[in-house]
Amino acid sequence: MTHLPIDTGDTAFMILCTAMVCLMTPGLAFFYGGLARKNNILTIMGQSFLSVGITTIMWIFGGFGLAFGHDIGGIIGNPADFFLMRHVTSFPNLFHGATIPFLMFFLYQLMFVVITVPLMTGAFAGRLNLKGYVLLVILWNLLIYFPVCHWIWGGGFLEQLGFRDFAGGAVIHTTAGFGSLACILTLGQRTIPLAEREKHSNLMAAAIGTGLLWFGWFGFNSGGALRADYQAVNAFGSTFTALAFAMITWLIVAKVKGKGFDFVDVLTGSVAGLATITPCAGYVEPKFAIVIGIIAGIVCHAAVDYRKKKQWDDALDVWGVHGMGGFTGTILIGIFAANSHLLTESKSWFLLGVQILGVIIVAIYAYVLTTLILKGIMHFTQITTTKEEQEKGLDYTFFTKK
Amino acid sequence: MTHLPIDTGDTAFMILCTAMVCLMTPGLAFFYGGLARKNNILTIMGQSFLSVGITTIMWIFGGFGLAFGHDIGGIIGNPADFFLMRHVTSFPNLFHGATIPFLMFFLYQLMFVVITVPLMTGAFAGRLNLKGYVLLVILWNLLIYFPVCHWIWGGGFLEQLGFRDFAGGAVIHTTAGFGSLACILTLGQRTIPLAEREKHSNLMAAAIGTGLLWFGWFGFNSGGALRADYQAVNAFGSTFTALAFAMITWLIVAKVKGKGFDFVDVLTGSVAGLATITPCAGYVEPKFAIVIGIIAGIVCHAAVDYRKKKQWDDALDVWGVHGMGGFTGTILIGIFAANSHLLTESKSWFLLGVQILGVIIVAIYAYVLTTLILKGIMHFTQITTTKEEQEKGLDYTFFTKK
Amino acid sequence: MTHLPIDTGDTAFMILCTAMVCLMTPGLAFFYGGLARKNNILTIMGQSFLSVGITTIMWIFGGFGLAFGHDIGGIIGNPADFFLMRHVTSFPNLFHGATIPFLMFFLYQLMFVVITVPLMTGAFAGRLNLKGYVLLVILWNLLIYFPVCHWIWGGGFLEQLGFRDFAGGAVIHTTAGFGSLACILTLGQRTIPLAEREKHSNLMAAAIGTGLLWFGWFGFNSGGALRADYQAVNAFGSTFTALAFAMITWLIVAKVKGKGFDFVDVLTGSVAGLATITPCAGYVEPKFAIVIGIIAGIVCHAAVDYRKKKQWDDALDVWGVHGMGGFTGTILIGIFAANSHLLTESKSWFLLGVQILGVIIVAIYAYVLTTLILKGIMHFTQITTTKEEQEKGLDYTFFTKK
Repeated sequence: MTHLPIDTGDTAFMILCTAMVCLMTPGLAFFYGGLARKNNILTIMGQSFLSVGITTIMWIFGGFGLAFGHDIGGIIGNPADFFLMRHVTSFPNLFHGATIPFLMFFLYQLMFVVITVPLMTGAFAGRLNLKGYVLLVILWNLLIYFPVCHWIWGGGFLEQLGFRDFAGGAVIHTTAGFGSLACILTLGQRTIPLAEREKHSNLMAAAIGTGLLWFGWFGFNSGGALRADYQAVNAFGSTFTALAFAMITWLIVAKVKGKGFDFVDVLTGSVAGLATITPCAGYVEPKFAIVIGIIAGIVCHAAVDYRKKKQWDDALDVWGVHGMGGFTGTILIGIFAANSHLLTESKSWFLLGVQILGVIIVAIYAYVLTTLILKGIMHFTQITTTKEEQEKGLDYTFFTKK
Repeated sequence: MTHLPIDTGDTAFMILCTAMVCLMTPGLAFFYGGLARKNNILTIMGQSFLSVGITTIMWIFGGFGLAFGHDIGGIIGNPADFFLMRHVTSFPNLFHGATIPFLMFFLYQLMFVVITVPLMTGAFAGRLNLKGYVLLVILWNLLIYFPVCHWIWGGGFLEQLGFRDFAGGAVIHTTAGFGSLACILTLGQRTIPLAEREKHSNLMAAAIGTGLLWFGWFGFNSGGALRADYQAVNAFGSTFTALAFAMITWLIVAKVKGKGFDFVDVLTGSVAGLATITPCAGYVEPKFAIVIGIIAGIVCHAAVDYRKKKQWDDALDVWGVHGMGGFTGTILIGIFAANSHLLTESKSWFLLGVQILGVIIVAIYAYVLTTLILKGIMHFTQITTTKEEQEKGLDYTFFTKK
Repeated sequence: MTHLPIDTGDTAFMILCTAMVCLMTPGLAFFYGGLARKNNILTIMGQSFLSVGITTIMWIFGGFGLAFGHDIGGIIGNPADFFLMRHVTSFPNLFHGATIPFLMFFLYQLMFVVITVPLMTGAFAGRLNLKGYVLLVILWNLLIYFPVCHWIWGGGFLEQLGFRDFAGGAVIHTTAGFGSLACILTLGQRTIPLAEREKHSNLMAAAIGTGLLWFGWFGFNSGGALRADYQAVNAFGSTFTALAFAMITWLIVAKVKGKGFDFVDVLTGSVAGLATITPCAGYVEPKFAIVIGIIAGIVCHAAVDYRKKKQWDDALDVWGVHGMGGFTGTILIGIFAANSHLLTESKSWFLLGVQILGVIIVAIYAYVLTTLILKGIMHFTQITTTKEEQEKGLDYTFFTKK
């Protein structure tokens, strides 16, 4: 049996991109931890770090197979295929990185799952206890991430329809964003007063987290090419361009609406651009990323305002920034990537239709399943925090050390 | 039309170096923010982050052309050449990275511009309001960075003379350092007492920033080779060597002068070495970087002492460390790189003369233009902070959120 | 004379891995600094940063030769061989990275030495003054690191016996861990009460440090392959797998023992996995890293409990986590790597015997020599801190600025 040869440049690239994505989980922990209320910072950071452990175990014991195993009816992969890393070899897989070890693809994709539930921790901050969080990680990965990942990247029905998502705008940001919305509506509001909720514990930590998120995001989006090629470079360029234009647009929108802006707006605007460009990064040229960045700033800022009006208690605006950003970007592929040299096979209007249909299915699925998961768990056991815990902050009770 | 082929190793290298340089802007934000007085940390961090947005927009809309477009009289590039990324393709450009997409070169150079004005924020800390900062970023990039970059790297008169600057000792550090000097002399002293000025808000943040700066600087200097080749490795080796020797030299000098040293000296000494080796990194062998590091420690420490004697209010010693470091290193190319196998075409004394002449022109140009820019702006509008703002710290008024 | 050609992918990979390992030293500084008692954070961070300067100078002036120079009796390398970087060229060395510049190998190995003494600072936190620390760095590198590195990687007697250590489980973690044990037993307990000792100054800093350690560790372990090949990818996979399983095992063990766990346990458990997998990373497949991670969680947690029972004042459990982790992992090579396709030449039981014998020699050597170094220094000068310094925290007196 002959194998495809490994390219050292591509392999170096993917090893380092994967390490960068791994750094995003701590980065997110600091971003959210710093933005959260005082005495919740350790809990939020702990939740991110815990996902690394739990999710890795799940990925090895069947998760990777559910996502990328042999397709079963367009819905799910065969979990037995790669159970315990069977067939996850050092040789390339023609369909998942033809110039890198298949194990590298396994690891790169693992980093994506690892960070998805942590993205949601910003929404339900202060409201889940340790047991609730652990159960959520397990069931959410199993019932939402693995299937949706299979639909879009693993040969499932959406991929078969021609649906595109370069680096996770639908698979990661839309699922996490609409999952978050389900969490905050199911878990309800924190009992602490509105003004108190919005106090940030440590903006320097939030800034460090944002800096690390930016850095990691380049690995996240460029790595989507699975090669160190022109598409990877293009993804980098589009990502940085969208970041910049979304940041400035966000600030201008805030100014125009009359409220002005502060340092948190600078950070949040940039993240809105990053979430929105994620599905598009390798498919659109940087000059179109200008428009995408501007749209990101406008749409996500409006979503956050809408959330405030509805008084949803999405502590760190995960729905507005990640959910609506990923949702919007996924649709924009159909407008800006069609007929591009980066996505040659697409046919304009058909692609747009598929993108809209696909991302709506994903958003609804994530919303409904997250609601069912939480209601299911709450039927059997206590996973929410008490009023007193919320007032004092979870750091005193989330962990169990005596 | 045939194109040069892309090398995956070189492309992987440049993508990752660019991401590392991007991390330096947040790194610098934490370094300066932590060293600044209390209640200025968010402002300084915000200034760095804002530069990312503003400068990227400028780079796309003409800035890259002004720096690297078709040469006009040795003075400036043609801004129309690459306007809106026209001709910034996925194919290599023979003169700017013959084995990587030209877009990669565009992005790598963008990261350099993005960080240059933020370098200056350490000098005028506490003295510019938001409007003043935004105007400074725009005019400084336009009138100083783009032209000087063109002179040295874009085919302008200094490059034509044979002037060399490997990774920005003149283009970045000398311009930012002497621009800083102009800022502090034009804006004047802060009204707060001397002892109060020098209190650091958060040395842990400064240390994190320094760690990230070190890391990013390897991408910054090694990436100057535009290839993952022996020169890139040499640049890494020279950079690390200079860092180490400058740090220890700085501490010994401080000890010998009788004042002793603290943690901030450890950090600052290392940064002095990094700024000084930047123009030389790929041109000198690491064993010569030993001498350059030692010179960096002596010269920059003396410059900081001189600044103190003159009572210039350079809050974080940008002139002494970056300005004098970059200035010195640019001259040292003429001594240590001449006749090296890394810079084969040079002729010893001529090169030294060109380096001295060139860096003096750059320093004077940056000083004079920065002064004119600030005086020009101040003629039309209020950009300085009030006594009360300076006392309380800018974090309460720099941003405009109500 | 013809030279081996350089591979751009491998060179890009090693430059970036080296930069990542360099980031571990600041990362460690934040991890330890944040876990340490208040008013010791700057001291601990300063110690890590100082090692960068001192160790680099030693490495250039003879250290690299002592480790990798021509073998003298299986015990030490010839320090004259590479003195002042003589023969450390841009061309590959057949035995130390046949596709990258030899200078790259020099730099990668330098990062390993730089971080080893800082690993020990977590043990003797609060007990050494500046003079003591500087003398320890110098003598410890000279008498312990350079020889042991030569024995195992530089052609010394252990390498000749077939002893294996992929990325420093013996060379770095076992020496630092058992060196730490010698430090705490020689320097004795801090005079401050037990409860007071264990208060952490800044858990957010510790978390940031851990995040950076994770990130850097991928460069640390993957880079051990010296190529961007299947072994490097395998090392990444094994490293991440062990991290995850050790973290969860650690938490389960803590829970089962009845004490529960907190955020620090999440961090420490993950580091235990990383230290333990280090010697094995490129030699064992990720599926065996599951078992190694589980063993790491059990053994290191037991070691920490044992340390507590003995009332050793190992402030941040360097012996229990790094020492026992590296020690255990080095032995496990003999069980999980034998007959693997990743370590083809090994013969099962013989390898296990060599690993056990070798790591015991290294542990005893590090313990005895560290004791002799400290007792020797203490014979001539005062290197320990006073009771008052320990109570107030070293940050007021470790550095000497007036």
